[in-house]
Amino acid sequence: MSLLVQKYGGTSVGNPERIRHVARRVIDTQRAGHRVVTVVSAMSGVTDGLIKLAHEVSPDPTEREMDVLLATGEQTTIALLAMAIDALGARAVSLTGAQAGIVTDGVHTQAKIANITPKQILHHLDDGAVVIVAGFQGQTMQGQVTTLGRGGSDLTAIAIASAIGADLCQIFTDVDGVYTCDPRLVPTARKLPELSYEEMLEMASLGSKVMQSRSVEFAKKFGVRFEVRSSFNDNPGTMIIDETPSMENVVIRGLSVEKNQAKVTVGAVPDRPGTAARVFNALAEARVVIDMIVQNVSANGQTDISFTLNKADLARAEEVLRPVVAEIGAGGLAARGEIAKLSVVGIGMRSHSGVAAKLFDCLARGGINIQMITTSEIKIAVIIDEASVAEAANLTHAAFGLEQGAYTA
Amino acid sequence: MSLLVQKYGGTSVGNPERIRHVARRVIDTQRAGHRVVTVVSAMSGVTDGLIKLAHEVSPDPTEREMDVLLATGEQTTIALLAMAIDALGARAVSLTGAQAGIVTDGVHTQAKIANITPKQILHHLDDGAVVIVAGFQGQTMQGQVTTLGRGGSDLTAIAIASAIGADLCQIFTDVDGVYTCDPRLVPTARKLPELSYEEMLEMASLGSKVMQSRSVEFAKKFGVRFEVRSSFNDNPGTMIIDETPSMENVVIRGLSVEKNQAKVTVGAVPDRPGTAARVFNALAEARVVIDMIVQNVSANGQTDISFTLNKADLARAEEVLRPVVAEIGAGGLAARGEIAKLSVVGIGMRSHSGVAAKLFDCLARGGINIQMITTSEIKIAVIIDEASVAEAANLTHAAFGLEQGAYTA
Repeated sequence: MSLLVQKYGGTSVGNPERIRHVARRVIDTQRAGHRVVTVVSAMSGVTDGLIKLAHEVSPDPTEREMDVLLATGEQTTIALLAMAIDALGARAVSLTGAQAGIVTDGVHTQAKIANITPKQILHHLDDGAVVIVAGFQGQTMQGQVTTLGRGGSDLTAIAIASAIGADLCQIFTDVDGVYTCDPRLVPTARKLPELSYEEMLEMASLGSKVMQSRSVEFAKKFGVRFEVRSSFNDNPGTMIIDETPSMENVVIRGLSVEKNQAKVTVGAVPDRPGTAARVFNALAEARVVIDMIVQNVSANGQTDISFTLNKADLARAEEVLRPVVAEIGAGGLAARGEIAKLSVVGIGMRSHSGVAAKLFDCLARGGINIQMITTSEIKIAVIIDEASVAEAANLTHAAFGLEQGAYTA
Repeated sequence: MSLLVQKYGGTSVGNPERIRHVARRVIDTQRAGHRVVTVVSAMSGVTDGLIKLAHEVSPDPTEREMDVLLATGEQTTIALLAMAIDALGARAVSLTGAQAGIVTDGVHTQAKIANITPKQILHHLDDGAVVIVAGFQGQTMQGQVTTLGRGGSDLTAIAIASAIGADLCQIFTDVDGVYTCDPRLVPTARKLPELSYEEMLEMASLGSKVMQSRSVEFAKKFGVRFEVRSSFNDNPGTMIIDETPSMENVVIRGLSVEKNQAKVTVGAVPDRPGTAARVFNALAEARVVIDMIVQNVSANGQTDISFTLNKADLARAEEVLRPVVAEIGAGGLAARGEIAKLSVVGIGMRSHSGVAAKLFDCLARGGINIQMITTSEIKIAVIIDEASVAEAANLTHAAFGLEQGAYTA
């Protein structure tokens, strides 16, 4: 008998029929001899509806009240799922975030979990019930309702799995697992049976943006084994676990693609301390989120600083930077949308050489120009034209033989 | 400066525009120098929508989970109203029933308030904020979500008014106050400026079923002065207060009419102990709610027992009683729908005679047959044909001169 935490996202509980389906799945798990805690999101569309309502009463809703409002979404789902399980003859007890003992800091709409006191959860489990917990929400020490921000329900599930020492946390979603590449882009993509936390972090954007990185980071930090799998079928998913020695043999686990990127180059920047800081402080103040940053060695006391960002933020970034360029005496500002990021990811890269060469060679043979390059210990990312991204992904996928699964040395 | 509790029902907060309207009204009250606690219901339609959802996942939803589900309705409203008040430049803090310190017993869907610890309410009031409390809900000592049943938000308002020693509790609703009779039935009906708790209890069905009797009883028990008034205009409403000596001069305060009634007569009941109990136990087990009961003196060792009930329950009552009639050896069972109850209510009846005679005379002159009569200390109620009810109400209203306001001796 094992102790499982199962998390079902908004699409999986999107209507009464799907809630009944989840109820059956939860009961089947319990009848197979497991103890089950189920974490659920708001039914799909509900949160957006609440946000719309908020903006109909206030142009700028207070964050404290936004949390009180949004927390009703998950509270609705826990009650409905508990009823559905009861109707199918098993016993279930719903708990709000507060009742489940999830204590957070006081940063409304983006609270961080401070600690979990799973007394109620354990009490009802010992009592033989399935425990249904509202994802995405908690309360402060003072009893204020808080929410955890985007991807909060995954975080709830993983944090509870950690707090109660669960054997496994299953993240049920609308995709089958994590693939070697997005199957909509690369038809030969294969589902990965397992992945290390580090690889999952780098590939966070694979497989329909399965999970936010902070949930993965939390799982990594506390050693929570989790599985990403579909709530619509019984296929095994992808296990995300601690790195094992044999994983090092896998050089490339998969490809990650991000479209809708843009790049900005601040050209001929005087090479003196503080200029880069000036540029990125201005962007941070305007809440522009930056992805890659590249600065090469300087020549003639000048250098170019390039960075990428989401295309939606491009206009704002340009507007913010124009006065900064003048102020620091840089040569100019060049911006470009319609680019994409292609990354190859794998733990084995640490101990195997030749990956970069293979990637660049494959893109060159396809006539695809590389505009920027960055690397981490287990990833190589290149910026290319968005129009070439499908071709580049398929070429790279084939070059590393990923249609056979992961690429081993 | 006084301390006010204002309660707004579902229609008054039925959409974002109305919520903004309530926000303005609350702010106006605060700016007039008062401290304000506002209790709100779920937006109209929301509770019914949630109940429908519940029945889509379960034929018989558990009451515990029903409470968790329904509590989201009021939680949504408190957040939206607090946002709306904030957007208009005042400060508001929302509190769920649990946060407001409303502790109930554990009878889900029909919980009773055990006590209120208004620490949070007082803290935020002292802080200068408008405090918005979710009506209809509370929590048990063990932290389970409960709801108070029909009319629960009124009860929340009156109980909070009592707990914080408010000067007045204002029940804002979609009618202007309590009238001498339902204005849709009697066009000359007048709004009553004041009413005693006892009269309000007897006239609970007046003025579009303004309030459930248990809220009135609670207010009476704890001496909470309250006012029933409209949220759609600024007209003064009806004050419900402790009986004053001068009230005794008012013989008839108003008329109450209930349609959709039915009556059942169990005829020729052997006049021995236990037969009436047998009849009404059977009805209670079938959850049939009985209104009037009339039994006259017996003749020849037999008597007739008649009672009235809601027409919707008539078929069930007949079904339940048929075997009982045989078992106790009664003569027969006669049932009739299409009847209505007309009551005249007034504290002054206690010390003034002739009211019954005046009522019966007026109905007789209108050719309206009286089928049953019951009286209480401050009320005379008659059962008549439903088809005659408008005529009877107008005749009675005129006979007592209620178009001039209350009837004094």
